[in-house]
Amino acid sequence: MSFSGSLVQNAIYIAQQPPEWPVAAEDWEGAAEERLDAGAFGYIAGGAGSESTMRANLDAFRRWRLRPRMLAGNATRDISVEVLGTRSPAPFLLAPIGVLSIAHEEGEVGVAQAAAASGVPMLLSSAATHSIEQVAETAAPRWFQLYWVNDREICESFVHRAEAAGYGAIVVTLDTLTLGWRPRDLRLAYLPFIKGEGCGQYFTDPVFLSKLAQTPEEDPLTAAATMLATFPNLGLTWGDLDWLRGQTSLPILVKGVLTAEDAREALRHGVDGVVVSNHGGRQVDGAVAALDALVEVREALPEAVVLMDGGIRCAADVLKAVALGADAVLLGRPYAYALAVGGRRGVEELIQNLMAEIDLTLALAGAHSVRELDRSWLSAV
Amino acid sequence: MSFSGSLVQNAIYIAQQPPEWPVAAEDWEGAAEERLDAGAFGYIAGGAGSESTMRANLDAFRRWRLRPRMLAGNATRDISVEVLGTRSPAPFLLAPIGVLSIAHEEGEVGVAQAAAASGVPMLLSSAATHSIEQVAETAAPRWFQLYWVNDREICESFVHRAEAAGYGAIVVTLDTLTLGWRPRDLRLAYLPFIKGEGCGQYFTDPVFLSKLAQTPEEDPLTAAATMLATFPNLGLTWGDLDWLRGQTSLPILVKGVLTAEDAREALRHGVDGVVVSNHGGRQVDGAVAALDALVEVREALPEAVVLMDGGIRCAADVLKAVALGADAVLLGRPYAYALAVGGRRGVEELIQNLMAEIDLTLALAGAHSVRELDRSWLSAV
Amino acid sequence: MSFSGSLVQNAIYIAQQPPEWPVAAEDWEGAAEERLDAGAFGYIAGGAGSESTMRANLDAFRRWRLRPRMLAGNATRDISVEVLGTRSPAPFLLAPIGVLSIAHEEGEVGVAQAAAASGVPMLLSSAATHSIEQVAETAAPRWFQLYWVNDREICESFVHRAEAAGYGAIVVTLDTLTLGWRPRDLRLAYLPFIKGEGCGQYFTDPVFLSKLAQTPEEDPLTAAATMLATFPNLGLTWGDLDWLRGQTSLPILVKGVLTAEDAREALRHGVDGVVVSNHGGRQVDGAVAALDALVEVREALPEAVVLMDGGIRCAADVLKAVALGADAVLLGRPYAYALAVGGRRGVEELIQNLMAEIDLTLALAGAHSVRELDRSWLSAV
Amino acid sequence: MSFSGSLVQNAIYIAQQPPEWPVAAEDWEGAAEERLDAGAFGYIAGGAGSESTMRANLDAFRRWRLRPRMLAGNATRDISVEVLGTRSPAPFLLAPIGVLSIAHEEGEVGVAQAAAASGVPMLLSSAATHSIEQVAETAAPRWFQLYWVNDREICESFVHRAEAAGYGAIVVTLDTLTLGWRPRDLRLAYLPFIKGEGCGQYFTDPVFLSKLAQTPEEDPLTAAATMLATFPNLGLTWGDLDWLRGQTSLPILVKGVLTAEDAREALRHGVDGVVVSNHGGRQVDGAVAALDALVEVREALPEAVVLMDGGIRCAADVLKAVALGADAVLLGRPYAYALAVGGRRGVEELIQNLMAEIDLTLALAGAHSVRELDRSWLSAV
Repeated sequence: MSFSGSLVQNAIYIAQQPPEWPVAAEDWEGAAEERLDAGAFGYIAGGAGSESTMRANLDAFRRWRLRPRMLAGNATRDISVEVLGTRSPAPFLLAPIGVLSIAHEEGEVGVAQAAAASGVPMLLSSAATHSIEQVAETAAPRWFQLYWVNDREICESFVHRAEAAGYGAIVVTLDTLTLGWRPRDLRLAYLPFIKGEGCGQYFTDPVFLSKLAQTPEEDPLTAAATMLATFPNLGLTWGDLDWLRGQTSLPILVKGVLTAEDAREALRHGVDGVVVSNHGGRQVDGAVAALDALVEVREALPEAVVLMDGGIRCAADVLKAVALGADAVLLGRPYAYALAVGGRRGVEELIQNLMAEIDLTLALAGAHSVRELDRSWLSAV
Repeated sequence: MSFSGSLVQNAIYIAQQPPEWPVAAEDWEGAAEERLDAGAFGYIAGGAGSESTMRANLDAFRRWRLRPRMLAGNATRDISVEVLGTRSPAPFLLAPIGVLSIAHEEGEVGVAQAAAASGVPMLLSSAATHSIEQVAETAAPRWFQLYWVNDREICESFVHRAEAAGYGAIVVTLDTLTLGWRPRDLRLAYLPFIKGEGCGQYFTDPVFLSKLAQTPEEDPLTAAATMLATFPNLGLTWGDLDWLRGQTSLPILVKGVLTAEDAREALRHGVDGVVVSNHGGRQVDGAVAALDALVEVREALPEAVVLMDGGIRCAADVLKAVALGADAVLLGRPYAYALAVGGRRGVEELIQNLMAEIDLTLALAGAHSVRELDRSWLSAV
Repeated sequence: MSFSGSLVQNAIYIAQQPPEWPVAAEDWEGAAEERLDAGAFGYIAGGAGSESTMRANLDAFRRWRLRPRMLAGNATRDISVEVLGTRSPAPFLLAPIGVLSIAHEEGEVGVAQAAAASGVPMLLSSAATHSIEQVAETAAPRWFQLYWVNDREICESFVHRAEAAGYGAIVVTLDTLTLGWRPRDLRLAYLPFIKGEGCGQYFTDPVFLSKLAQTPEEDPLTAAATMLATFPNLGLTWGDLDWLRGQTSLPILVKGVLTAEDAREALRHGVDGVVVSNHGGRQVDGAVAALDALVEVREALPEAVVLMDGGIRCAADVLKAVALGADAVLLGRPYAYALAVGGRRGVEELIQNLMAEIDLTLALAGAHSVRELDRSWLSAV
Repeated sequence: MSFSGSLVQNAIYIAQQPPEWPVAAEDWEGAAEERLDAGAFGYIAGGAGSESTMRANLDAFRRWRLRPRMLAGNATRDISVEVLGTRSPAPFLLAPIGVLSIAHEEGEVGVAQAAAASGVPMLLSSAATHSIEQVAETAAPRWFQLYWVNDREICESFVHRAEAAGYGAIVVTLDTLTLGWRPRDLRLAYLPFIKGEGCGQYFTDPVFLSKLAQTPEEDPLTAAATMLATFPNLGLTWGDLDWLRGQTSLPILVKGVLTAEDAREALRHGVDGVVVSNHGGRQVDGAVAALDALVEVREALPEAVVLMDGGIRCAADVLKAVALGADAVLLGRPYAYALAVGGRRGVEELIQNLMAEIDLTLALAGAHSVRELDRSWLSAV
């Protein structure tokens, strides 16, 4: 059951909806903060440095307004998208978020079950607690996010496991070749990985395990430290993409592009798409807002596959990003909060609500399809 | 008795005014919130999604400033307007608001009595609790707002009843062919219609009643559900306006226009005027501010009859909208709050105060008539 | 004793200054609010309508920044000005504020004593509680503010009394031909005049008294009502200035000019100067900020005598206004608060502090004289 | 031990870091406010007048956003700078702050010890409590800040002592030829110098001591008053720089430049560099933001040595200032708060954290060196 453009159905749904579920993104966030300990909440909610990038992400959406059109005759609409062969019933996917076990014991499997139920693809993180194969069992539409660590054998193994497990694309994160400066975590000395959380891909990986003298069960701390030691990889260059391109026939996207220059560079190196992102403001404090970067990238590359994340909180945000040129957006923190509040059921509720809100807003804005949206549907303030 | 440009009269009035009446729009709102249960207040006060459109409506007024002129010799002034043959003593009318019975038991009849007393026309909603005929008995100057539901027979019946009952125009709402996504209502699962509120036009309509197996008294839930089922009508197109045009000789306005393109389209289909509106921010979250849309529409259509609503809270707002080209504005939430606080007397008080404030502000701004105002009376910040 | 550019003197002064005196404008305001009853404080602090003009007055100063110059060799500086033959030791005068007896029993005489002590001219209000002659006894440098009421005999009498009592100019307020819409007063039904406050000029005026059947002592209410009845005068036109011009050889300024058009009109009718003002945001809600209007007026009239008031709270505000073309500014609410807090001594303290702050800021900004300031000393944000 | 670009090292550091140390600049400020008495905190935290310059300094950074580049292959980076022959491991130096003994008993010696430990140069203030020679004993890389008082013999003595004690440059403060108007100090009548704090250079200076009839130990008040009496020197002009130039072979910088005109004037008089500064908003209320002034100065003087201070709170601020043309920035209040919280160890912690944050942010932004940054790394909002 879900919301729809039908008022009667919605009325019935409302009457049945357990009132304890939050509705708006900030409701979920508030409920999550109540349920989580300070370290876990801070890890999810926090950003780099003064968190100015995080705020900029939100502010950027306020500078664009939708121009609704009337009497479009759009009793049926299509909010689905297809990106590089993967379909989504809505113009959003679930962004890769690591360590979701700190939000809820169901972790990434809970998210994947919600993804499977709704059809909205999930991007599984290299830093997930649940493994590539566990998530694949849920039959969720899925892509794999790769942290390109400083050990090519491990990267290769992850990519091959993802391909074998039916993941539809590899999304290489460029913006986190080491972790950013995050005061909320530093204040509490909070780093979940050293407790074994977020090690799902590694502790199930034959290549990684072969490098350990003892199993993670026998010596968890050394296993975690070894994993962390593979993480920093700032020596990586654009040329390295050619090697990765040779490892898989899956579409490859790069995530973390914030400039037209980098978007062009990525395409020159054979990637199939770019994700405009500043990692939710968690890496470079003071960085340009993701939506502003989307405008720059799309203007430079009118034909490329371009996704974006950063600051998506409601349907209007999704539609604005699509009208500014995103083929789809990635939803991040909101679903982590929903997971914290209600596990798999919370995530499903959030997804259904956002889909219904997108469909209603699109309906009332007078469009027949999200693919129809362009700059003529917006005005700048 | 009312306020006026006369200081002595105002002094006397102040001395006599029961101090318990609120003065400014935010005072009325605060008092209403205290009196209403959370569901009813949230239904009136809330907006779509993140409520960004609601805030944008208010913010847009801050970007324009009045340029007062001195020594205009305007001891007498005229703040009255005439729109499509209907006169108002002030450049505002009462916007169509449904279900006013949730604000106060006097509901739309209370509002109509205040309209009759003040001479300010009322736009009766299709979703009112009191019927077309009940309101007509008050002799209020009145227009009828039509929700163009998915049953032409019902629409036709409503229009003919309004014409027969002396309503001066039909205002077709374009922006609500289904209800928007309103988190305040969703949080509380609040939908007044399923309790029979806001069904006044339907439950008194011979066409609608003929479709029911049992009367609303006998089976209220089925009656309400049947009514709700007629509501969604997103298939409607501009061409359908031609049919409506053939149903009545009354002036027809369309409400919910936010773009120059739609305003032109409406005029091409024979409407007599447009109401620039985003439904008080209740339908499309992220939509352009109503005042900004007014500027766009008026620049595109210098000669058309153009009203606006959205964000009007005080006299300065009214004068700015008029200077930007509105023939008149519609006052919305403020009078619903006044109704909640004081029933008919509250609405009267609010109207008198706003009229007095408009007259005083116009006097002090150096104009002789609201019709004299144009862009030269404003500067942009 | 007063502050100066000398650090040692200031250090001594600081050590001696009773710590109970407030320092910054907002400190005085806070202390005044504590001491005054709600009606009196609201009357002084409040503005018209939504008070957006009041806020705009303050905001406008934030959009201009001073460009300090170094090593100017300005060990001695001159912050004095001369406006139409009246000298002030600082580039500000005390704005005309009526009914100061509601702030402190010393009322306008207390202010005049502080003006006399400091040499800063005072503009005595037509709506003062103390009379033209009482204030003249203090020997304060002084101008007279005229509310041009609807009885020319009274106006004439006031002007002649002011001239006889040694006032140096007549400042005709154009923006208050009737009182604005002030919600703070309306909420409390507060109007001081009906209690006899602010009637000083009238109850001592032979022309006014000759119109009463009974003296104000015998029948105070009728006297106050008669006075109020003379107030509204919206029929006044620019042409009437010619009559006033014929009544006195004193310089005449008009106060309340907000547009280049009105400034030109005023000069055409022989006034000697204009005061750009929106009456502290107390008359036209939504009006242009005073500082923005100053820019417009000065650009249109490079040679005219132009004062301004509205939003002056600190030395930087004074210097910005002067750099934007004001020959001097009028200080309003801050001194009313100082009067409320400390009577004459409070006003003296405020004046001395502001003079010292202006001198220090000018010194540090690298100017030798306030008359040297122009647009090159500012940058816009 | 310190933070670095290595995630594993950082993880270990986090685990060891005493959780009681603050992390972000506002954390240090909050902790300092708790520890200091109101007078001392107000002296450090406060600004001139309405403190609008202080706020403008912070706001200016929000209008510029970093444009991070990906896959730059920057596993090693260089954040060091060299300014006029003095190297710093990071693109910041410690701004000259007087009277640091009011923050912590370790005072300037504590700061110098932290500077020596980190290698970040310290600018010792003429108004320090600890002397030129005491600070030199710490072996901190160091420059001397000169308040050019009205006694050339004292200035000459200070400069010669600094040169003899191995200071690497003389930084002449232009913007404080007398103290600004600081309400926080005025409210509390707080002036630390009259208690002998901040007199370190004077009370150890043979020239100064020769002018006293009694030693500072015998008659501290007269000694302090004599010192204060030398302070005001507003008669100083650009021509006087020629005399100073003749006193020393050290590089001379002038601090307090806010305009292109003054920067050009300074270079004409033979200075080796300028420090764009408004003294942290402590001198001219309403002055242009330091970062805005940097843009103006750098555009006018593409080749000059230009430092800046005012509003630096985090790594992003440092990088933005450098990208806008600063050869280095000066860090001010944050280290005074760190001193208050933890003495020398607090300052070390702050410096290490800021260096680590700068290095991480630079790494993630894709640069190899801070010297590589220019306007192409920024976008304006």
